[in-house]
Amino acid sequence: MWFVGIIFIETNSKKKIANKIYIYEKSKSCIAKIKRLKLPGIIVKRLEEGVKKSDLIILCTPMSEYKNLILKMNKFLLTKTIITDVGSSKLESSKIIKKFLRKDVCWTQSHPIAGSEVSGPEHGKHDIFEKKWCVLIKEKSTKKKHLSMLGNFWRKIGSKVVVMTPEKHDKIFSITSHLPHLIAYNLVKSAQDFEKIQNFDLIKYSAGGLRDFSRIAASNEIMWRDIFFNNKQNISRAIDLFIKNLNSFKKDINSKNNKSILKKLIQTKKVRSKIIKLKQDINKPDFGRN
Amino acid sequence: MWFVGIIFIETNSKKKIANKIYIYEKSKSCIAKIKRLKLPGIIVKRLEEGVKKSDLIILCTPMSEYKNLILKMNKFLLTKTIITDVGSSKLESSKIIKKFLRKDVCWTQSHPIAGSEVSGPEHGKHDIFEKKWCVLIKEKSTKKKHLSMLGNFWRKIGSKVVVMTPEKHDKIFSITSHLPHLIAYNLVKSAQDFEKIQNFDLIKYSAGGLRDFSRIAASNEIMWRDIFFNNKQNISRAIDLFIKNLNSFKKDINSKNNKSILKKLIQTKKVRSKIIKLKQDINKPDFGRN
Repeated sequence: MWFVGIIFIETNSKKKIANKIYIYEKSKSCIAKIKRLKLPGIIVKRLEEGVKKSDLIILCTPMSEYKNLILKMNKFLLTKTIITDVGSSKLESSKIIKKFLRKDVCWTQSHPIAGSEVSGPEHGKHDIFEKKWCVLIKEKSTKKKHLSMLGNFWRKIGSKVVVMTPEKHDKIFSITSHLPHLIAYNLVKSAQDFEKIQNFDLIKYSAGGLRDFSRIAASNEIMWRDIFFNNKQNISRAIDLFIKNLNSFKKDINSKNNKSILKKLIQTKKVRSKIIKLKQDINKPDFGRN
Repeated sequence: MWFVGIIFIETNSKKKIANKIYIYEKSKSCIAKIKRLKLPGIIVKRLEEGVKKSDLIILCTPMSEYKNLILKMNKFLLTKTIITDVGSSKLESSKIIKKFLRKDVCWTQSHPIAGSEVSGPEHGKHDIFEKKWCVLIKEKSTKKKHLSMLGNFWRKIGSKVVVMTPEKHDKIFSITSHLPHLIAYNLVKSAQDFEKIQNFDLIKYSAGGLRDFSRIAASNEIMWRDIFFNNKQNISRAIDLFIKNLNSFKKDINSKNNKSILKKLIQTKKVRSKIIKLKQDINKPDFGRN
């Protein structure tokens, strides 16, 4: 499975998840890759070709494209079609969908917690969603039938499904995903600034910790700009909490407050074993990478 | 190779790196592990047994133990013995060594950039230093002969050796290692605080980014308290730079400053490919962990 542009799925067959897959993609380089890799899917040149034929439409574009695509799709959409997306923040998208989508069609948002710092058709993996969470968004306007069918779709490709409101989603992921990405970008930026100020060649010593952050900071910039902008209130609050805690650490360090710093370092250590226990990460030192 | 307590090396043989290895270890549990794993090394009960017989002494203890150990070792030390350590910050240790070590013996500091979030004899690996940097510290008082012999030792066990002053070392690693660790601890702490305030069960969604930070934040707390305290001035300055940059990111996000944020996100991305090119990390998406 891989995500690029818009994927339309025709689900006639009972045995397979999809009978036909249509792909609408702007990037010529991505289209060339899809063809070269012989990925299953028919590339359509006009949006309506995919929209009219499909039972399930999955938008896999930056969130800043939603409005534009909704306006283009509106006249072709059928009321029975399930429409979803895989964006990483939900409340702002929900507002855009409510404002611009034709009133007689429904959109049920998804957020599969899967993927890595690379993107594009060549980085797809058949088991990318296997045992990974997929959050489905439930609002007042959500159709129970669509939610249930969409849940079945994600479960069939391996996901564990959980349902929540867009408000709760955006709060949780502001801390577990959006802040970590921002912090990683910010740490790498600070290292670059320091390198310039000091005129030291320091990246070659990055194995001491910095390299971990550089992976996340190599993620797609358009995708992350959209996430940061769309979830700005929660992220802003998360930054404030982070800075408050960092200043407290700084105070402990400068005053050599042994008791206070050890309490923090011991407490945070517990989260790793919880994450391993919940099978959210590999149970090997150093991610098993060496 | 594995580090625990103090390692003394007798280097009579020309063919092997060490003829005999003596280990002085306080922890009964570690001693039991060393015996169970049949690791090469003779456990000595009294410090002087190892000190007197060895050509090379490697302190692999938390840096807060140096003063105490120096005072205990002083009367047994021979002037010809090369003494080193593997501590992660150097200027403060250098001051302690200068103040308490007997004046007719020499200590040449090492810092191998290797290891992971786990510690103890069971986590040793034969190739842990292979192609990893080892920083040797050169000061006015450093004996050229000791520096050269110590460099040969590290190279023989696979390291790439680089020599620098303690001042330069502590500046570089405040950014490439100490700040990343502090930031990781602080992010996990902030997630824990948020979980309490919101009463959300959010750790199970950590695959979105948080889990990466939890690995580093699972590192040994005594070791890291000592590093933070010993390099507090550089770390404090690094925190200030980090917070300044984070506030700038926050401003970009709140004002949706597209140009400014994209410039930052694109610029930071470059560091990852530099790190991969310098072979400081594995060249696979997601550290190859899935």
